[in-house]
Amino acid sequence: MTSPSQPTEELSIADLQRHIHQMYFEKDVARGVDGTFMWLMEEVGELASALRGNDKQNLAEEFADVIAWLATIANVAGVDLNAALVAKYGHGCPGCKRLVCECPNSEKP
Amino acid sequence: MTSPSQPTEELSIADLQRHIHQMYFEKDVARGVDGTFMWLMEEVGELASALRGNDKQNLAEEFADVIAWLATIANVAGVDLNAALVAKYGHGCPGCKRLVCECPNSEKP
Repeated sequence: MTSPSQPTEELSIADLQRHIHQMYFEKDVARGVDGTFMWLMEEVGELASALRGNDKQNLAEEFADVIAWLATIANVAGVDLNAALVAKYGHGCPGCKRLVCECPNSEKP
Repeated sequence: MTSPSQPTEELSIADLQRHIHQMYFEKDVARGVDGTFMWLMEEVGELASALRGNDKQNLAEEFADVIAWLATIANVAGVDLNAALVAKYGHGCPGCKRLVCECPNSEKP
């Protein structure tokens, strides 16, 4: 997907959300959360299909699409994804607080 | 969610995926893609529910959970989320190639 001679830049979650905001926010707000959630569900279905297939590039694209639609919904709902992820997962497993999860397998996750 | 005196660190997508890998990979591989996808669907349902509610902190946590489960599935499936996102969304809208999308509204997205 990327050339070995051109290392891929490391995108931050905040940058991604800002980038999606810049590209789509006007349309996203007009569509609203409910209409946008329908698009997310369509992409989740495509991800499920790609996970059953053998096309690695298509699979990567479907992951990107699902995350992009999540960022879109977060923009419309006014949620800061970076803050949300750092708060919940930035300091170990939310269940056992360890960096390598030791929660019992019966528990989620 | 975060104290104003402590600015939230900016997590990269690659760091998040590595962090989820460190915390959960052993369990994730044992569960496999199919079992993990079931957990993702449960979290998507919780996100839908939170989007209908008024609890902003809960909403942020549900976004974090959905993205964490996506990172988990990407780990099991061997997909580099950062590379996938940079390739598809790192250089403007995949449809019209513009930084502010000008695709017709009839088109996706």
